[in-house]
Amino acid sequence: MASSETYSAPEHAKVEEIPAAEHEKAVAAPPPEVKAPADRPPIGYCALAEVVLRFLLFASALVAVVVIVTSKQTIHHVPAKFNHSPAFIYFVAALSVAGLYSIITTLFSFYALLKPGCYPKVLSHFVIFDVVLLGIVSAATGTAGAVGYIGLKGNKHVGWKKICHVYDDFCRHVGASVFVSLFASIVLLFLVLLSVHSLSKKTTK
Amino acid sequence: MASSETYSAPEHAKVEEIPAAEHEKAVAAPPPEVKAPADRPPIGYCALAEVVLRFLLFASALVAVVVIVTSKQTIHHVPAKFNHSPAFIYFVAALSVAGLYSIITTLFSFYALLKPGCYPKVLSHFVIFDVVLLGIVSAATGTAGAVGYIGLKGNKHVGWKKICHVYDDFCRHVGASVFVSLFASIVLLFLVLLSVHSLSKKTTK
Repeated sequence: MASSETYSAPEHAKVEEIPAAEHEKAVAAPPPEVKAPADRPPIGYCALAEVVLRFLLFASALVAVVVIVTSKQTIHHVPAKFNHSPAFIYFVAALSVAGLYSIITTLFSFYALLKPGCYPKVLSHFVIFDVVLLGIVSAATGTAGAVGYIGLKGNKHVGWKKICHVYDDFCRHVGASVFVSLFASIVLLFLVLLSVHSLSKKTTK
Repeated sequence: MASSETYSAPEHAKVEEIPAAEHEKAVAAPPPEVKAPADRPPIGYCALAEVVLRFLLFASALVAVVVIVTSKQTIHHVPAKFNHSPAFIYFVAALSVAGLYSIITTLFSFYALLKPGCYPKVLSHFVIFDVVLLGIVSAATGTAGAVGYIGLKGNKHVGWKKICHVYDDFCRHVGASVFVSLFASIVLLFLVLLSVHSLSKKTTK
């Protein structure tokens, strides 16, 4: 222990023996270093909000998929399953893609939170996929919602009878899943607005 | 005529009698003036693309609404109308809002094309509404598409019979309207990406 302390002491002493020219450089350097912390707080704040929103997106996409996939209900040997309707199959596919995408981007934005230097470039690429996914997830919500609504209320004009008074548990699952995916759409909306806000903030600076 | 020429001549002579200090200022000034035209072409180009996209959005929203509203078909005194389904009512409402919004924003972006100075501020406000409308219009497309698909194919699992082999003209109108609104969603997607592109371009400059 004593020997390691005697080894470290000369190194510490060396660091303080900076030539005068280098010392002047160090004095001249501060302006950009002072500016960087002033710039960082809003970026860090936005990056933190982004990580939280992306995690929320992942959680809601996962919940929506799990809830609709586990909605099978059998009454008098006649089962009701999500894959009986192409609308629900599209819904599961869209939200699975959203879930997988959100895992990747959560990791990326968490990394960007730790190293804020590479942030703007990552941001402007993510926002493109965010916008595309917003379209896909909202369309999926609309699709599943429309089929669920016909199941709940029926349509007397064309003779489509309601099924939710029989398959109550199935319908409850579908309804919950649609609401969770509506939440996912809103999270995606906020993610896009957050990116636009960050970009326009940098533009006005 | 001759008198006005004699009056203007001294003024012209005055302008040339600039003190040396002011003349130096005028020489120092050019850099920002040279920079401004170099900055303008991409903004003008993006503004032109925006006007075209916004006009396309207006045209597609109008066509989608007109096509679905005029879809009434009566067979054996039993009419099929768009307002028999809540999904189609939502569809008409969403695309009417998109149409009205696009009229206003086309005018604004046309104005921004003529006066590029106030462009970035207008842009970052429009993109918020563009993103919200993208969600609404895609959801409407999904909703109407899901109901239209059940009408076309039926669903044997729950006993919803298809109606499009009877109400062929009605279904053709609905199908065309859904495809036009899908086009409107894609136009909105490009509008958002165009705004993000303009904003991130300014950030990297």
